Amino acid sequence: MTSTPHPLDEALRLSSTTPGQYEGHTHPGYWNMVGPFGGVTAATLLRAILLHPDRLGDPLSLTVNYAGALAEGAFTVQAVPVRTNRSTQHWTLSILQPDAEGAPVVTTTATAVTAVRRETWSVGDTPMPPVPGPLEQPAIAPGFGSEWLGRYEMRPVTGSVPSAWDGSGDHSLTQLWMRDAPPRPLDFCALAALADLFFPRIWLRRARRVPAGTVSLTVYFHASQAQLQATGTGYLLGQARGQEFRNGFFDQAVQLWNEAGAMLATSHQIVYYKE
Amino acid sequence: MTSTPHPLDEALRLSSTTPGQYEGHTHPGYWNMVGPFGGVTAATLLRAILLHPDRLGDPLSLTVNYAGALAEGAFTVQAVPVRTNRSTQHWTLSILQPDAEGAPVVTTTATAVTAVRRETWSVGDTPMPPVPGPLEQPAIAPGFGSEWLGRYEMRPVTGSVPSAWDGSGDHSLTQLWMRDAPPRPLDFCALAALADLFFPRIWLRRARRVPAGTVSLTVYFHASQAQLQATGTGYLLGQARGQEFRNGFFDQAVQLWNEAGAMLATSHQIVYYKE
Repeated sequence: MTSTPHPLDEALRLSSTTPGQYEGHTHPGYWNMVGPFGGVTAATLLRAILLHPDRLGDPLSLTVNYAGALAEGAFTVQAVPVRTNRSTQHWTLSILQPDAEGAPVVTTTATAVTAVRRETWSVGDTPMPPVPGPLEQPAIAPGFGSEWLGRYEMRPVTGSVPSAWDGSGDHSLTQLWMRDAPPRPLDFCALAALADLFFPRIWLRRARRVPAGTVSLTVYFHASQAQLQATGTGYLLGQARGQEFRNGFFDQAVQLWNEAGAMLATSHQIVYYKE
Repeated sequence: MTSTPHPLDEALRLSSTTPGQYEGHTHPGYWNMVGPFGGVTAATLLRAILLHPDRLGDPLSLTVNYAGALAEGAFTVQAVPVRTNRSTQHWTLSILQPDAEGAPVVTTTATAVTAVRRETWSVGDTPMPPVPGPLEQPAIAPGFGSEWLGRYEMRPVTGSVPSAWDGSGDHSLTQLWMRDAPPRPLDFCALAALADLFFPRIWLRRARRVPAGTVSLTVYFHASQAQLQATGTGYLLGQARGQEFRNGFFDQAVQLWNEAGAMLATSHQIVYYKE
């Protein structure tokens, strides 16, 4: 019996002949409108770090700047550990694709920190909101246009994509249960991708579907390997809210908890919108 | 009559003979425990971008990774516009200092996005909390150890530094009115520094003063030049809250409004703590 690889594992496949230099290929299953789903691009950058032979510790923070859309095809990830301390390591990354003349063009820049974590006094200071469980919410039927939406199971609690684009919006809060489809045991890369799962807050706030795209995304990882393993293929509750919509850009604040109520990651992004 | 330069302008003084390469010097007035106040380091990186002859637009986002403490003395800022689009520009930055043998060592990495912003539909979705005005709160007397605290006027509304380190803490919310001391008209660099003004959330949450230091800071700029000018030397209301304290690191979410209630910036950081 052979098992088919999960589409996320296919999308994150990187090969390397030089430490810090990785070759990958965009995956049709995670295609968005004009490039790959940004969450998979973030996960790909993290994957390069995790593959690096000199890596110290687990992901702590990741900032991804979407400088230009990745074209369908091959790309190169560069991941450089620019400074390694006793328990933290600082990374600078970029994704490159050749232009029409074959010259490398930067499509994405990033920085990251990995860290060796020790058990300390800990407390969650943002409890998971009291919401109905994942199976009490119907899953969204995939297919509002982008292929990547079919790679996730989404069960909205509140703040779904507006059913009418009538300008009636009055808030920007979405809460939804989410996981990979088909289910896949959670790891740091999948978590990074899930942090970018939310549709643009401006669509909800305005009930108007204007062009929008993430410019910069930051993920802070709070989960340990053990917490990820304990989460397994369970659902995450994701919460996203806009804070300020101003002259072409809004910011989004995100929290992700597992079903047991443990905060696995917090995330933020600044997003371009038109009109 | 000659006027003395403001200490922040002194601290942000950079000279350059090559575009993208800037020489600066740490300023004793902004000294923290083992290096400069992190907010001034963020402001210095932003200053390098603003001085660059190829810059497009105003600051939109800035992420600073504190890889190692800056030593007292000279440093070099490298600021490279790695990709320029029609209305956004993506920057990669670093700060370098020579080690004992004179070899350059990276102390700080950063990325930033600048953008040409156009007037669009806009709305604030996180109103300023109803708090008493700045002059109704007494200013903190400077001098709990670090020189840089004397460069800011801070008028706490709630969540002051605990008066007793007795382990009695039960929340991590601080709200305070703040501005440069002496007063200085607000600009993007000063705003970046103010985003890092808060004492470590872990001190408040635990009422215990454990070693702590920012690892990575992100600032999203919502303000226009006109809003900064309208704010002038007025106070900002800053709000900071921890979300998750877990195994040596916590994250902090920050909002900054001017007295008129306009959201000027939102910010986040992940912070190391011991024990």
